[in-house]
Amino acid sequence: MTDNAFSNPLEALFSERSAHIKQSAVRDVFDISVQPGLVSFASGSPNLKALPVEELGEAARRVVVDHSAEALNYGVGTGMDQLRKQITEVMALEGAENVDWETVLVTTGSQFAQDIAAKVFCDEGDVILCEDPTYVGALNAFEVYRVEVVPVATDEHGIIPEALTETIRSLKAAGKRVKMLYTIPSFNNPSGISLAEERRQPVVDACRAENILVLEDNPYGLLKFDGKPFRPLVADNPDDVIYLGSFSKILAPGVRVGWAVIPKALFRRFYLAAEAVVLTPSTVTQLLVSEYLTSIDWRGAISESRALYKERCEAMLAALEREFGDVEGVSWTVPEGGFFVWVTLPEGIDTYPLMREGIDAGVVFIPGVAFSPNDEPNHHLRLAFSNVTPEQIDEGFRRLKPVLMRAIEGARG
Amino acid sequence: MTDNAFSNPLEALFSERSAHIKQSAVRDVFDISVQPGLVSFASGSPNLKALPVEELGEAARRVVVDHSAEALNYGVGTGMDQLRKQITEVMALEGAENVDWETVLVTTGSQFAQDIAAKVFCDEGDVILCEDPTYVGALNAFEVYRVEVVPVATDEHGIIPEALTETIRSLKAAGKRVKMLYTIPSFNNPSGISLAEERRQPVVDACRAENILVLEDNPYGLLKFDGKPFRPLVADNPDDVIYLGSFSKILAPGVRVGWAVIPKALFRRFYLAAEAVVLTPSTVTQLLVSEYLTSIDWRGAISESRALYKERCEAMLAALEREFGDVEGVSWTVPEGGFFVWVTLPEGIDTYPLMREGIDAGVVFIPGVAFSPNDEPNHHLRLAFSNVTPEQIDEGFRRLKPVLMRAIEGARG
Repeated sequence: MTDNAFSNPLEALFSERSAHIKQSAVRDVFDISVQPGLVSFASGSPNLKALPVEELGEAARRVVVDHSAEALNYGVGTGMDQLRKQITEVMALEGAENVDWETVLVTTGSQFAQDIAAKVFCDEGDVILCEDPTYVGALNAFEVYRVEVVPVATDEHGIIPEALTETIRSLKAAGKRVKMLYTIPSFNNPSGISLAEERRQPVVDACRAENILVLEDNPYGLLKFDGKPFRPLVADNPDDVIYLGSFSKILAPGVRVGWAVIPKALFRRFYLAAEAVVLTPSTVTQLLVSEYLTSIDWRGAISESRALYKERCEAMLAALEREFGDVEGVSWTVPEGGFFVWVTLPEGIDTYPLMREGIDAGVVFIPGVAFSPNDEPNHHLRLAFSNVTPEQIDEGFRRLKPVLMRAIEGARG
Repeated sequence: MTDNAFSNPLEALFSERSAHIKQSAVRDVFDISVQPGLVSFASGSPNLKALPVEELGEAARRVVVDHSAEALNYGVGTGMDQLRKQITEVMALEGAENVDWETVLVTTGSQFAQDIAAKVFCDEGDVILCEDPTYVGALNAFEVYRVEVVPVATDEHGIIPEALTETIRSLKAAGKRVKMLYTIPSFNNPSGISLAEERRQPVVDACRAENILVLEDNPYGLLKFDGKPFRPLVADNPDDVIYLGSFSKILAPGVRVGWAVIPKALFRRFYLAAEAVVLTPSTVTQLLVSEYLTSIDWRGAISESRALYKERCEAMLAALEREFGDVEGVSWTVPEGGFFVWVTLPEGIDTYPLMREGIDAGVVFIPGVAFSPNDEPNHHLRLAFSNVTPEQIDEGFRRLKPVLMRAIEGARG
């Protein structure tokens, strides 16, 4: 499929908005990275091999046969009450114990709620604050609404509350309307960094003081390696935070079921906007998730996943130490959970062309530029450990090292 | 859940766009119409009772167990190639035999494509032309983008091509940018009217001449009672028409799988915009639909559905004739397929308050105002025959007649 740009007068019909539709470097990599034999540090997929597929298949059969009238028909725009209530149990497991199920909106994947949030809250030119780096999909969802995405200062403990306040004030002084802070406070994708416990309430307070909504994206929250999840921002701030959850990382991305917890005063418009796009999330996959939560030991499954991801993360950190521990200018984050390690190379290196060299060497990662609201050359890269065994990690690093070392030595030269 | 309007300073964050999020009268009716004993002429649901649920359940089990690696993981933004190819077979059955599978985008329900079309093509103030009445969901999807939705003149044979040309010219003369014609040419929802064969090419030509895209919404196309579907507009005009198809009416709404056929020159931006919202349609439900098309006699099932809907439509037309045949000022459409009959009452009657009276009498319909781009009192109502037996139709009309007659006599008085 080629773009055939300028070949058709209908292209004059494209909206100004559509010029902000980005082609993501990530997807191109995904398209390539399915080649057999390639070690993929690219995909943020969960480890699906541990899922009890026979039981899940039986659950899928029951959904269609025993609940056909409900499973096959239209549902309701909010999602099924039964699943909304079960979702509050999932949230309780990470410490948000008092979520009102009526504030839970089931969504067609979690990214869908990012799109709706930008649609419902942002006019052209409005500002959304975010971490840099941040989730590429959120950038794609936001930028089509012609908002300005502005990074806030972070360090190894996440957003710096004082810097957040300062950024908001200077943007407001410049006449900007700041609508939201989009944040992944636990095991950020791609950085792996978590917002420190003592900074959590101050970040929300800084936003509340300026009447800015917090969009807390927390797909990995339950995957903290020590089994003691960070308390989500929404837990103590239900009127100031929209919380986004997902079954993609704790069950399976293929169901496309996520959720949003929305302040009561904002719920109705948010959900009507969602309904105007998809009418209702799939009843088939909602019921499948509901059956999973009812009939399978999902807490146990999460606990096992957590141990597996911990082992893989440790293998990756060990490989980094072994291969790059004494290389000047190379550093990496040490995540407490989630799927990703973020590697920093010496300044002056652009990791985007290295992606292709990596693929030629049999290993693939995502270059840092994909995760930044600006398009400057970027000397970072994201390594996902979620879907590779320790053996694959070691093999991947054997392939990766010469590629990165050539670039590092070239930059020194 | 109450709206709590004005109680929270965060409401100041709502975008101007969000003021265009409509609360639809239709949904309120759906919420009520599930009361036991009510005869529902409201729901445009297909008859799901004829589905082979055991076979479908077995297909769902196979999808999860035999295809787990694919079914449970992320898919690709375009949808699965296998399903895209199968969709061209579905389209061949209604006469569009040369659809290039690479121009097929699998969507999360058909309405999703309406949202993306407005997003990709329309800036604020742009005009989308439509029939009046038209599908309420499309109006909801479009209006949030702050477009102007303008009806074109129709008669019992659908859009009048000369009037369409005239409307376009006068809008352009007034400085408006007309981007799309949204049309349901076969068995319009809600009117049941079809665009006459001899008008089909002239309607496309009128749009092409003014560089306006045709958005052909055709969820009922295969449900023409005589089994000889109208040739879709896209069949002869692949570079001028975006075609929207759906499995909601020929399989089950709960899968939320639809598709769009998109001119090659427009495909890439359209699909990237879709990907930015949902990443990928559910692989679980895509594979379920694919299994259905592979392992079950879907052509036979459509043929049986068609006969069933024909019988129900005839029962409804007979009831209308019996109860209202000699009532002055009452008329109705005679559909050749689809799910709906559109009833016109004498002018001056507003069917919106009658909906509530109907519910009190044990029968529910959708008032005409739901389907119009303007909010004036409306003397039409939509009756769905798709999901009621002939016996239920007769009982529903016994309940409906006194409600409508009181209004008609009141209007005369």
